[in-house]
Amino acid sequence: MKQNEKYKIYLEEDEIPTQWYNVRADMKIKPAPLVNPATGKPATLEDLTPVFCEELAKQELDNDTRYFDIPEEIQKFYRMYRPAPLVRAYFLEEALGTPAHIYYKFEGNNTSGSHKLNSAVAQVYYAKKQGLKGTTTETGAGQWGTAVSMASAFFHMDAKVYMVKVSYEQKPFRREVMRTYGATVTPSPSMTTEIGKAILAEHPGTTGSLGCAISEAVEVAVKTPGYRYILGSVLNQVLLHQSIIGLEAKKAFDKIGVKPDIIIGCAGGGSNLGGLMSPFMGEKLRGEADYRFIAVEPASCPSLTRGVYAYDFADTGRICPLAKMYTLGSDFIPSPNHAGGLRYHGMSPIVSELYDEGLMEARAVEQTKVFEAAEMFARTEGILPAPESSHAIRVAIDEALKCKETGEAKNILFGLTGTGYFDLVAYQKFHDGEMSDYIPTDEDLKKSIAKLPKI
Amino acid sequence: MKQNEKYKIYLEEDEIPTQWYNVRADMKIKPAPLVNPATGKPATLEDLTPVFCEELAKQELDNDTRYFDIPEEIQKFYRMYRPAPLVRAYFLEEALGTPAHIYYKFEGNNTSGSHKLNSAVAQVYYAKKQGLKGTTTETGAGQWGTAVSMASAFFHMDAKVYMVKVSYEQKPFRREVMRTYGATVTPSPSMTTEIGKAILAEHPGTTGSLGCAISEAVEVAVKTPGYRYILGSVLNQVLLHQSIIGLEAKKAFDKIGVKPDIIIGCAGGGSNLGGLMSPFMGEKLRGEADYRFIAVEPASCPSLTRGVYAYDFADTGRICPLAKMYTLGSDFIPSPNHAGGLRYHGMSPIVSELYDEGLMEARAVEQTKVFEAAEMFARTEGILPAPESSHAIRVAIDEALKCKETGEAKNILFGLTGTGYFDLVAYQKFHDGEMSDYIPTDEDLKKSIAKLPKI
Repeated sequence: MKQNEKYKIYLEEDEIPTQWYNVRADMKIKPAPLVNPATGKPATLEDLTPVFCEELAKQELDNDTRYFDIPEEIQKFYRMYRPAPLVRAYFLEEALGTPAHIYYKFEGNNTSGSHKLNSAVAQVYYAKKQGLKGTTTETGAGQWGTAVSMASAFFHMDAKVYMVKVSYEQKPFRREVMRTYGATVTPSPSMTTEIGKAILAEHPGTTGSLGCAISEAVEVAVKTPGYRYILGSVLNQVLLHQSIIGLEAKKAFDKIGVKPDIIIGCAGGGSNLGGLMSPFMGEKLRGEADYRFIAVEPASCPSLTRGVYAYDFADTGRICPLAKMYTLGSDFIPSPNHAGGLRYHGMSPIVSELYDEGLMEARAVEQTKVFEAAEMFARTEGILPAPESSHAIRVAIDEALKCKETGEAKNILFGLTGTGYFDLVAYQKFHDGEMSDYIPTDEDLKKSIAKLPKI
Repeated sequence: MKQNEKYKIYLEEDEIPTQWYNVRADMKIKPAPLVNPATGKPATLEDLTPVFCEELAKQELDNDTRYFDIPEEIQKFYRMYRPAPLVRAYFLEEALGTPAHIYYKFEGNNTSGSHKLNSAVAQVYYAKKQGLKGTTTETGAGQWGTAVSMASAFFHMDAKVYMVKVSYEQKPFRREVMRTYGATVTPSPSMTTEIGKAILAEHPGTTGSLGCAISEAVEVAVKTPGYRYILGSVLNQVLLHQSIIGLEAKKAFDKIGVKPDIIIGCAGGGSNLGGLMSPFMGEKLRGEADYRFIAVEPASCPSLTRGVYAYDFADTGRICPLAKMYTLGSDFIPSPNHAGGLRYHGMSPIVSELYDEGLMEARAVEQTKVFEAAEMFARTEGILPAPESSHAIRVAIDEALKCKETGEAKNILFGLTGTGYFDLVAYQKFHDGEMSDYIPTDEDLKKSIAKLPKI
């Protein structure tokens, strides 16, 4: 059997990358800096360290260092669930009757169920190294919170997770996994913070939002000695850690002598897409190779395709640094019928800048079409995909069908970020014909975008 | 990095075994034959084929053929999720402070969440090859039903799954996964069969049992043209298919030049344990090597440690062939506080015979101790284990702690059959201190054992 006839390409353990790649080093126009809302000036290390661990704040601000060594302890942890396989989707290709070659990088083979673990372990490790007691964070769909819990159990660190209330109530099992790993999970908004109390006073029946949970977690981190706040997406540091996805994928492709033509990732805050595409984008930025990149977002939360590129609040409570990003406004909350994650109002500043420069494309897809793709994928490739990942599957299928029309044998790579074992309420709605699509009106978006800060 | 310093030993795809190993060929005393309850004589091919697919019935009866070729189509399916890794549990060893080397063969990296898929794909394939429309089966905890659904989707076959009512109600997500793969799931006992109606008439409030679900599935298979019944454990054919677990594990050990001293598997009907130990047991039977084998069963369903070795009914409706096995009697139902699978009243005839000859040991463990082990494993090794698998973890930990006392660096292998993503109600009970142990009294067992058939 030849290497390129395999279903799964696994690297050897000693081929797991030992450095993260920082795509900012190769960007001619750097992502806009975070801004201190109090001063209106770029956030300094001193501004960031009360909230973030010092090492992570340094990574956040460093636009120049191309490679960061991955500490030994993190490498050890990575070996627990990495390398993640690059899989050739032979069965899906066959079902579609496409000449395209479809590959996916599968990041769901770990109990957190997604790629989020790649950054969680890094962030918890740096907190431990700094001598802290624990971290605070928020979680929406639950993957990030689970990842933080697992990493915290491993490093014997405390984890306080603020979980968007609607998820907390609808996903008791997600909560329970986090408890298994020893984390404290609080539904947000809660009465444990000033911001939570204020939001509850103003909107007593609210089911919460990511922006609100972030505010609560940040407040607790700042007020509790020995704690810092950590975040699973959007930030530059997160994309740095997630570059391991793309680095492994690239190494695996090099092994079989294949070059992907199209690279597709679902995009909420940009952690998976940014990580998957980073090393390939680096080649494009350096003029060494060309690739098409497609960010796929939900039509119900279309920050890239319908948002504006501007400085915005990162959280509802407006206590975080401001970020320049494609945004729908920090008050934007996706329609309640939206299933799964990918519900953040903004987008990673790195992804935003690359998109703004025309180095990548974006596409918005409706969720019934997403679940159709998810079910087809499950039945042919065996893996039950997460709703988030299924956005990428949808567009990979669409591109493969275009190849069927044109007869082109393109190499399509998409990120299969996770599994859908905790998303079966959404699958049930889809099967029962109770799932609907919702596209926000221009009026809706105008309202939330109107509240952007003046900077 | 040397091979034996790796965390995970993956075979290459072209090293996946292409033949199953039939341990019966090396047994001096063969497992007792199935018996036709109508004639009291060993079941013939003609007796079995109205219920089972012909090829599977042949495998069931064949005590002599040592190796069976795995059909090409099944090999293709295996490549979707195999090889399964052999993992060195470095982190668990470190947490225990044991000199023992602990290895586990992880079979949970597929959406069905367990090893059951290994036999499901084989059984559904043979049904398709015979030109049938579909299969019927039962499922308790849900792994087997999910596996059958996945295999059926792949081969475009219909699947009618009878799910023990208590699981159907407590595990709506398991049900939903099966629906995603296109299976029909019916809570058992149901009004769709004569046996179901009779059981409901006699016990209106019953929450069902595996024995009852088997009866319903068999009835439907026999009465519906184009259908046959398939079963996920107990049968000789299932252990044959599951030998792929042991064959892969053995190949991986050979690669790193290690020989396990103790081989541990959880035992409900015997599918995982039988499959894991088969090739090692073969060496022992042929006098080529020696190993200790330990079957681990729940104290609440202790067929090996407290049952009798006798012919018994395989199902509550008493329509299946009789099997000679360690059994608690076909009326035995584990206490309702018992979590997860491993609740069948009997044990694989192969495992029963090997145990009866003293070729292996058995141990019964209480479920609170099992969940303690599960949580420790999750926190150190990262994987949330299924309750069933955690029985094996418990004993692996106990044996590793004995090594700590004696200073011996034994090689311990256990089967990590699956993941616990659908068992979080049980984990929650454990965390909340609401989980209890129940050991049936001698009186309880006497009652159900008294009803064994006279043969």
